[in-house]
Amino acid sequence: MAETDSRPELRYSNRPTMKDVAARAGVGLKTVSRVVNGEPGVTPDTEQRVQEAIEALGFRRNDSARVLRKGRTASIGLVLEDLADPFYGPLNRAVEEVARAHGALLINGSSAEDPAREQELVLALCARRVDGLIVIPAGDDHRYLEPEIAAGVATVFVDRPAGKIDADVVLSDSFGGAREGVAHLIGHGHRRIGFIGDQPRIHTANERLRGYYAAMEEAGLPADDAWVSLGSTAPERVTEAVTAMLDGPEPVTAVFAGNNRVTVTAVRVLAGRERPVALVGFDDIELADLLRPGLTVVAQDATLLGRTAADRLFRRLDGANDAPARVELPTRLIARGSGEIPPWTP
Amino acid sequence: MAETDSRPELRYSNRPTMKDVAARAGVGLKTVSRVVNGEPGVTPDTEQRVQEAIEALGFRRNDSARVLRKGRTASIGLVLEDLADPFYGPLNRAVEEVARAHGALLINGSSAEDPAREQELVLALCARRVDGLIVIPAGDDHRYLEPEIAAGVATVFVDRPAGKIDADVVLSDSFGGAREGVAHLIGHGHRRIGFIGDQPRIHTANERLRGYYAAMEEAGLPADDAWVSLGSTAPERVTEAVTAMLDGPEPVTAVFAGNNRVTVTAVRVLAGRERPVALVGFDDIELADLLRPGLTVVAQDATLLGRTAADRLFRRLDGANDAPARVELPTRLIARGSGEIPPWTP
Repeated sequence: MAETDSRPELRYSNRPTMKDVAARAGVGLKTVSRVVNGEPGVTPDTEQRVQEAIEALGFRRNDSARVLRKGRTASIGLVLEDLADPFYGPLNRAVEEVARAHGALLINGSSAEDPAREQELVLALCARRVDGLIVIPAGDDHRYLEPEIAAGVATVFVDRPAGKIDADVVLSDSFGGAREGVAHLIGHGHRRIGFIGDQPRIHTANERLRGYYAAMEEAGLPADDAWVSLGSTAPERVTEAVTAMLDGPEPVTAVFAGNNRVTVTAVRVLAGRERPVALVGFDDIELADLLRPGLTVVAQDATLLGRTAADRLFRRLDGANDAPARVELPTRLIARGSGEIPPWTP
Repeated sequence: MAETDSRPELRYSNRPTMKDVAARAGVGLKTVSRVVNGEPGVTPDTEQRVQEAIEALGFRRNDSARVLRKGRTASIGLVLEDLADPFYGPLNRAVEEVARAHGALLINGSSAEDPAREQELVLALCARRVDGLIVIPAGDDHRYLEPEIAAGVATVFVDRPAGKIDADVVLSDSFGGAREGVAHLIGHGHRRIGFIGDQPRIHTANERLRGYYAAMEEAGLPADDAWVSLGSTAPERVTEAVTAMLDGPEPVTAVFAGNNRVTVTAVRVLAGRERPVALVGFDDIELADLLRPGLTVVAQDATLLGRTAADRLFRRLDGANDAPARVELPTRLIARGSGEIPPWTP
């Protein structure tokens, strides 16, 4: 750590203030303020004296106080499900890049899929006066945000819509993507297809299940209750669900995994089984092409989701006041091998 | 969006203030302040009137102004290399969990390995008065931080040490881990081993290269210049480097990949070649065990790195003033197949 500064103007436990700078430079406080804010009305000599004092004291402008006076904090909040989930990484970075282009800092945190934690985090961000919010909702009731929105905090929801309020949302076509993925399996001959998804209260999990049911129905296929499992994406639960579907009285010949977390565990379980089972996963994962067989996925564009949401947010902050809109981005089926395995026959 | 509120007290473009609450409740401002801050001296009836006014107006305490008066912002900054890199995900989350346990918000951003961007981000965080900083440094000169540290912003560096200043640092044993990984290849018969790492100015890249040279020297093996390549981790550059080492006059029989980004590309290149080439990568990656062959890695514990750094930061913020220390966490070699392939003989 740097040595304790022996200069009398610099009190160890306090930052140098503009008053300290004024005293050292032998000028008035207003003069220092003009120099710091780049305002005219200061002779070059005086400006140099002030800059030297700033340099010598290590003075740094306090933007917290300054932004309070101007009304904007130049920061936005991003509430994700899980900072460690690789799916959110590109979304996080895309939002950060848009924020940076607008001179704003990004504050982010995870809700861990807990509606109470989401609310706590969102309100903490509002209490710190973020200019705008991008929220991946964990809960289904966002009326708690209405006072903030009314007070001018622009809010855009991502990945899932807001609950019980009208707000901008940017998301992927979960229903259509899942339907296409399941139809792909049906097209390769499968009749008994399992669906393993996230917690039932999560919007995307439901939409993808809806897509599964739509594809089965459109093909005139019944969907056995034993072939559908929604719940935690923890490896233990998913392993149990996949295993039950493979060993039950009506074993499946294919599995549709509802998101990247489920897919990773499903790949592991299937790799340990002798019988080949087809697999399509929602969300692409790193190295999917290097697995044997290569992984067939319904891919989202997390970068585009993040960028679209952030662009929308800054247009709102710049004054756009059109009605809240829902922007749905298409998914993309990438066939690499696992989804084209035919139904196993003994 | 919520309908414009017609209540006269709520001006659409302004937040309700404590004065608005006082007016609505018919009490003095000090009384409202006591209720908001949970201080004694307010009768239950009066408190209820104030709470009802707060509720009706949608008043929310302004923590920005409040924390300025108390001196702490209850926020810490985290500067990473890249928010989208899966390696940093667990580190990010670990820091966030420690911060949350201390009631602090986490503000993070990426330096994109650019020292200028790192400095800009760090100073922006300081200007917003974060209580502490966790920095994965991109640059090698951190004297610009001395005034901030002197003013009380606790700072802990992670993954690589600070440059030219004395500060807490938590990192993995890059040198020892790389040495162990290369020795592992030597132990399986390899004499011609390639090293592909990140940009030469990055501390971890250098430490791992040092470990490579140490292992080669300890085994009495020369290290041909053509077997060492440091530079961008972009797939194009890494592909070129790996290919050159496999097709050169002294082709390598094994490759040591300096980090997860290099490993991912190396796996791809080697998968497309006929000749089996051994591979050990620094950093574990998802699904490493499902590749064929399974990937042998020298693994770091990103979660432990993040948690250790954050714990250290909060102990500093709580007043610990022992000398800055360097905490080095051991790595762990995980043999899964790719590192045990013997040298190919035609």
